[in-house]
Amino acid sequence: MTGFLGEVCDKAMIGFDWGTSTLRVYRLGPQGGLIERREAPLGISKIAGGDFAGACGDIAGDWLALHETVVLAGMIGSRQGWREAPYVACPADVAAIAAACIPVDLPGGGRGHIVPGVMSRDAGGVPDVMRGEETQIVGLLRTLGDGPASLCLPGTHSKWVSIDRGRITGFRTYFTGEMFDLIGNHSMLARVFTDGPDAENAFDAGMRRAAAPGGLLHHVFGIRAAILAGDLPAGAGRAFLSGLLVGHEIAAEAPSGTVHLLGGAALAKRYSRALARAGIDCIAHGEDVTARGLWEIGCRIG
Amino acid sequence: MTGFLGEVCDKAMIGFDWGTSTLRVYRLGPQGGLIERREAPLGISKIAGGDFAGACGDIAGDWLALHETVVLAGMIGSRQGWREAPYVACPADVAAIAAACIPVDLPGGGRGHIVPGVMSRDAGGVPDVMRGEETQIVGLLRTLGDGPASLCLPGTHSKWVSIDRGRITGFRTYFTGEMFDLIGNHSMLARVFTDGPDAENAFDAGMRRAAAPGGLLHHVFGIRAAILAGDLPAGAGRAFLSGLLVGHEIAAEAPSGTVHLLGGAALAKRYSRALARAGIDCIAHGEDVTARGLWEIGCRIG
Repeated sequence: MTGFLGEVCDKAMIGFDWGTSTLRVYRLGPQGGLIERREAPLGISKIAGGDFAGACGDIAGDWLALHETVVLAGMIGSRQGWREAPYVACPADVAAIAAACIPVDLPGGGRGHIVPGVMSRDAGGVPDVMRGEETQIVGLLRTLGDGPASLCLPGTHSKWVSIDRGRITGFRTYFTGEMFDLIGNHSMLARVFTDGPDAENAFDAGMRRAAAPGGLLHHVFGIRAAILAGDLPAGAGRAFLSGLLVGHEIAAEAPSGTVHLLGGAALAKRYSRALARAGIDCIAHGEDVTARGLWEIGCRIG
Repeated sequence: MTGFLGEVCDKAMIGFDWGTSTLRVYRLGPQGGLIERREAPLGISKIAGGDFAGACGDIAGDWLALHETVVLAGMIGSRQGWREAPYVACPADVAAIAAACIPVDLPGGGRGHIVPGVMSRDAGGVPDVMRGEETQIVGLLRTLGDGPASLCLPGTHSKWVSIDRGRITGFRTYFTGEMFDLIGNHSMLARVFTDGPDAENAFDAGMRRAAAPGGLLHHVFGIRAAILAGDLPAGAGRAFLSGLLVGHEIAAEAPSGTVHLLGGAALAKRYSRALARAGIDCIAHGEDVTARGLWEIGCRIG
């Protein structure tokens, strides 16, 4: 399928997936094939003195000497990163993302291109943002084809993305993963939960609870009450909480049609199960599409 | 008004309001009037070796020597307290609460009565619990009169209580206050928020946001996006979050008719404003009704 994305390009390149805690670098061949991959715990929060150029040289100086196109995505383009790459507005296609890349000078005289995030505004003008996910999404576009598609990227901040004709037309972010961590590890429930198997029936019960009236704030306190009443084993609390939060996310999003899932194996399995319980078809894709996305963006740079 | 509560009794008593972090003791006259009040940072989590009897003697040994009726309410009756006083089921009136009190031996040979919590089950059988609030509610019953009433006790775990003919007929708890603490102090938003005035317009904006589609998990992430987009000053983030959470609580509860508010001045002011914005009448009551509740319960003991 070529369609809105056009033909693949012939450039070889170097791609950086540079997050808050981890740095991954890919050497990519002329058709976007992965030649080699390196990873280090050198996320942007761990670069002493903000010497990002030095870190590039340390991890991939030999590759940079090839003077191929270099593309960098993720938190490296945030206000806390190397240079801020302002958000591109939706609808955003690959060309718009590539055109908004911000140049940086690399060791060895080359130039790198920092990928911008994407900003969406809902019907009421309320903003939402992504940074890093746009590159994953771009990496999946050829697989999705040209028609409209619904994409879910579960995680700390789950993204539900609407795609149409090769463009990100809008998206909504949910605090689900971080909320699970906050409640499960820092709330009064954290002191009540005990270790237990990740029971699928407790997850399902949490999902069903999400569909009941009362809202999330009531449902969360109800976990404590259910444990006190003996209705829920303390060891099943975390699985119930997970089902409750994912259930609220899916209920708020109310997807119609097939959902394309893009995430790590454990989360993809959990969301696949949740979507099935909600009667929604889904297709799970392998998570490793970032390198492909970096390459697609690089194809459209100078 | 006497009605369902009957005449006031003639007993003098000693009442303990014994929470997790604070112990308050009241000496009460024959009509329930407050004679003297003592307070110490001797909550149940701070009593070395679980010597609750010793703590009673330390704070009020002179009063216990009077051998009046002694009533103890709050977390002292929880599993982590002195003796567990199991929850009384709704509908619960003062007589049922008094009948379920659990005796303990006091220093000096007297006997104390630990007030039970109250458990509610919704139409689907899902439990909710309170412990301590039942005594506050009982303390307000004569003020409320005999008809049906809606009561809101805002706080770490806000309670919305239905009262009818002197009975607690049901209630729902919301995780609102604890959620505000978790997000405001422990999440990625905590790192973004700056100090700012407790701006009422930001609180109102948060309340309006709560009424929009998308659900709480989406709305919470949206605070981050709004700050990044420059739509919300970082210093107004906490006030917006507060309005958002209180707005979700009120929307889920969807009260009809007048709401009786029972809570500290700052929270009562915030909820009064929120209810007004939602077009709901409210009457704010002073918080200090616990002593009265202890006395009403004590009137019905032995």
